[in-house]
Amino acid sequence: MISESSKRRISESTIHRLSLYYRLLSVLEKESKETVSSKELAEREKLTPAQVRKDLSFFGSFGTRGLGYPVSELKRRIGEILGLDRQWSVALIGVGNIGSALVGYKEFQRQGFNIKLIFDNDQRKIGSNHKGIVVADIKNLEKELRENKIEIVVIAVPATVAQYIVDDVVKAGIKAILNFAPVNLKVPEDVFLRNENMSMELEYLSFALVNLFNGRGTNR
Amino acid sequence: MISESSKRRISESTIHRLSLYYRLLSVLEKESKETVSSKELAEREKLTPAQVRKDLSFFGSFGTRGLGYPVSELKRRIGEILGLDRQWSVALIGVGNIGSALVGYKEFQRQGFNIKLIFDNDQRKIGSNHKGIVVADIKNLEKELRENKIEIVVIAVPATVAQYIVDDVVKAGIKAILNFAPVNLKVPEDVFLRNENMSMELEYLSFALVNLFNGRGTNR
Repeated sequence: MISESSKRRISESTIHRLSLYYRLLSVLEKESKETVSSKELAEREKLTPAQVRKDLSFFGSFGTRGLGYPVSELKRRIGEILGLDRQWSVALIGVGNIGSALVGYKEFQRQGFNIKLIFDNDQRKIGSNHKGIVVADIKNLEKELRENKIEIVVIAVPATVAQYIVDDVVKAGIKAILNFAPVNLKVPEDVFLRNENMSMELEYLSFALVNLFNGRGTNR
Repeated sequence: MISESSKRRISESTIHRLSLYYRLLSVLEKESKETVSSKELAEREKLTPAQVRKDLSFFGSFGTRGLGYPVSELKRRIGEILGLDRQWSVALIGVGNIGSALVGYKEFQRQGFNIKLIFDNDQRKIGSNHKGIVVADIKNLEKELRENKIEIVVIAVPATVAQYIVDDVVKAGIKAILNFAPVNLKVPEDVFLRNENMSMELEYLSFALVNLFNGRGTNR
C-alpha cells in the first residue's frame, strides 16, 4: 500500500515514467521474463538506475538486491496506482480528424479506456456509426454523460468552441478531461484537466537537432 | 548564449516545461504584457516559482528581481533553444486515421513544422491530395526524403510494419523521428526517436481519479 502523503508527492513526470515502466513490463511479461533489474529498466528507458530505484521506492522496499524486481508483481502494482487494473467509461466530443483517429486508437481500449459515447454538433455526423458507436447530438450532452456514468471526457473540437463545451462537461459532474484543442481551458479547481499537445514531441526533436546533435541520439 | 555543458544538463522534463512556457509567453505577448514574474508563470503552469527560476536559469541571469522577465525576450530565447525560430521540413509516413489528423493539425505549422511530403503504400491513397500535398509512393521513400532535404519524419503506420519503415528512414540519413505507432522501435545511437503515446495523458487522469481525488483537481 502507498500512503496518502506518498501519493501526493508523486510528481507529474514520475507518473509519466510509471506509464513507461508499465509498458516495458508488459513487454517483458510477454517474453516470460520473471525479474528485471533497475539497471535494465534504466537502460531501456534511457534513465539512470538511481532514478528508476527512486521512482519504484514509492512502492515500498520490494525487489531484491542482485535479483531485481519481480516483473508481474511490479506491473500489477504500477497498474494499480495508474488505475489500469479497472475499466474506465470515456466519452469523446468531436468526431473530426483527430476525434476519428482516437475512436480507432486501439491503445486506449488496451489500457482500459473504453469510448462509450461520441458526440458531435454536425447533423451529417449525428446518427452515423463509428466503430459500433452511434454519434449522439451534443444537445443531449449533460443528460447522456450522467445516464451513462461517464468518468472521463476527451475533447476534440475546434479551439473556438472548446471552452463552451468544457463548461457543459463540468456541469455534468465530470472530474477528468483530456483536451486536444490547442487552447488553454478554464475548469474549476476540483476538475482534472490534461492537454494533449502533439507538437511538444516535435519540439523535443527540434531541440535535439539544434542543441544535442553531435553524432549521438537520445531515445525513449 | 547557453554553454554546451548546460545544454547537456537540460532534462527531458525541462524541455517539456520550456515548451509550456513558450506557449504561455506567446499568449502573454498577444495580450501586450511586457513582463512576467516567476510566481505568475508558476501559477499558470501549476509549478513552484523555484522550479520556474531553476528552468530559466539556463538562460543566464536575466529577469529583474521585483520586475520579472521581459516577455518577448524570454519567448525569443526559449524559442531559439527549442529550434522554433526557424522552419523545419517534415515528412509524414502513413495517411490513415492518425496521419490524416496530423496533416490537418494547424499547431505543427504554427510552430514551424511544415509537412512537405506524405507517403503511403496504399494504391488508393497514392496520388490523392491532402491539404495540397500529393501522397507519394512509399517505394520512393529514400530518394524523396533526400531530394527534399527532409529533417524530421513522423511515422503513423500500423505497429506491424513500423520497424521496416523506420529502418528505411534511417537509411535515408534522417536523424529525428516521431513515432505514433504503439511499438518500441530500434534506431541507431545517432538518431533521435520520440514516441507519441496518446493514452499516457489518460493514464495521468485515471491516476488522479484513483489517487488524488478529494475535491481538488490539478491542471496544466
